[in-house]
Amino acid sequence: MKENSVVQTLLDHKSIRRFIEKPVSDEIITTLVQAGQQAPFASQYYSVLLSRNAKRNPMHAPLLFTICVDSFKFEKIMAKRKWKLVTNDLTLLFFGIQDAALMAENMVVAGRSLGLGSCFLGNAPFRADQIAEEYNLPQRVFPLVQLVMGYPSEDPPRRPRYPLAYTLFEDRYPELTEALVDHAMQQMDEGYLAQDYYRSRQAKIPLTVDRKETFTYDDYSWTEHICRKWGQWFPDPADLYTQLEKRGFNIEKKR
Amino acid sequence: MKENSVVQTLLDHKSIRRFIEKPVSDEIITTLVQAGQQAPFASQYYSVLLSRNAKRNPMHAPLLFTICVDSFKFEKIMAKRKWKLVTNDLTLLFFGIQDAALMAENMVVAGRSLGLGSCFLGNAPFRADQIAEEYNLPQRVFPLVQLVMGYPSEDPPRRPRYPLAYTLFEDRYPELTEALVDHAMQQMDEGYLAQDYYRSRQAKIPLTVDRKETFTYDDYSWTEHICRKWGQWFPDPADLYTQLEKRGFNIEKKR
Repeated sequence: MKENSVVQTLLDHKSIRRFIEKPVSDEIITTLVQAGQQAPFASQYYSVLLSRNAKRNPMHAPLLFTICVDSFKFEKIMAKRKWKLVTNDLTLLFFGIQDAALMAENMVVAGRSLGLGSCFLGNAPFRADQIAEEYNLPQRVFPLVQLVMGYPSEDPPRRPRYPLAYTLFEDRYPELTEALVDHAMQQMDEGYLAQDYYRSRQAKIPLTVDRKETFTYDDYSWTEHICRKWGQWFPDPADLYTQLEKRGFNIEKKR
Repeated sequence: MKENSVVQTLLDHKSIRRFIEKPVSDEIITTLVQAGQQAPFASQYYSVLLSRNAKRNPMHAPLLFTICVDSFKFEKIMAKRKWKLVTNDLTLLFFGIQDAALMAENMVVAGRSLGLGSCFLGNAPFRADQIAEEYNLPQRVFPLVQLVMGYPSEDPPRRPRYPLAYTLFEDRYPELTEALVDHAMQQMDEGYLAQDYYRSRQAKIPLTVDRKETFTYDDYSWTEHICRKWGQWFPDPADLYTQLEKRGFNIEKKR
């Protein structure tokens, strides 16, 4: 593998959930955001909210960023130019979610290079109404993902990932043979077990479906954990639809 | 601003659309993907397709990556664990699009640090059926975004971005005053005009709505350009719905 300080920073990433109390300077915050702003956006369809209220922020992080898909501020520009938005909201969200994610990832990477740790919180879309109230968001701004950040007080190991052969496919999507699937599962599960990841967090997801618990922290690992999410959570898109509608986004088919 | 080689790499990003013929080594391709793989994913819900057919790739780029939202390969794991996916596809896409975008951005950043230039192509979702055929994609794999990459034969300047005051909002989404909107527009438009960006590409978007063309390349710039996209394109989500359905994704409300 080719190494340099940038590649090393990317490879060394891990989520940080514990922080020391040291505040983060304005200069560093500005750097994070400006480094994020140079990402290759489709149309800068995002905004970043910040809270420095460590007492209230999740994990008492010195910084809580909320990265939003923001159509409101572009519609202000359209109004100045006497244009009216016609693009449908589903398409806008496809581009806007990507813009917001590019921004967020650049902030994570810049942060790490400056000694900061971070962790994404993915549940913002499901409490978009609360976040909108907290930050006084106008309609057409949708909180996509939150990012806590600060100086780390922990130094976890690099987390396991799928094998390259389960990730990169040249020219043709391959047949995912039983051997390939097994190998990917093994690499993830043994990797997390070796780090005692779920036990140390007591993070087993309870079974809510009719299924007998047979796992202990000796064998409960990544694939079982994610199966319990996508096998039990969010059966109905109604909540997400409601949150989108409350923020002024309508992604339904035209009838 | 705090500077280091990582921050500098992020700040120096620009899209590259012209490449020299030099191929990219296997070692570098592996590095790009492995650096991408360490991003903070919700659940590794992506796959990366690669074509090295420079003759056929857009912009004759040595590398064409297609980053997909991939539910198929996780469902293989679920089947092994005798779980069935219950999460609705809209929620999966919200997380999967983010996973895919984090991967893509890390590849862009790692690439730049290794001397490679890149450019995103955003239209993959609208020709997902074609891409699926080219790469023999199974159902439940959705091509989200493409990324051309290679050694640059151009060195454009850094592109303009919104002012920080139009991007980062502390504690409360501010009133976007006329002065703030004007300033953001001016910074974008004057910035691109100073680089002769649209003229050098002859990239004016034709007017298809009933509106008189009054712009020349002396005043046609970023805000007018993006207004012509979101003011004219994709009025109906039907095409995107069709593409999603063809790939086996159903994001409709339950009735």
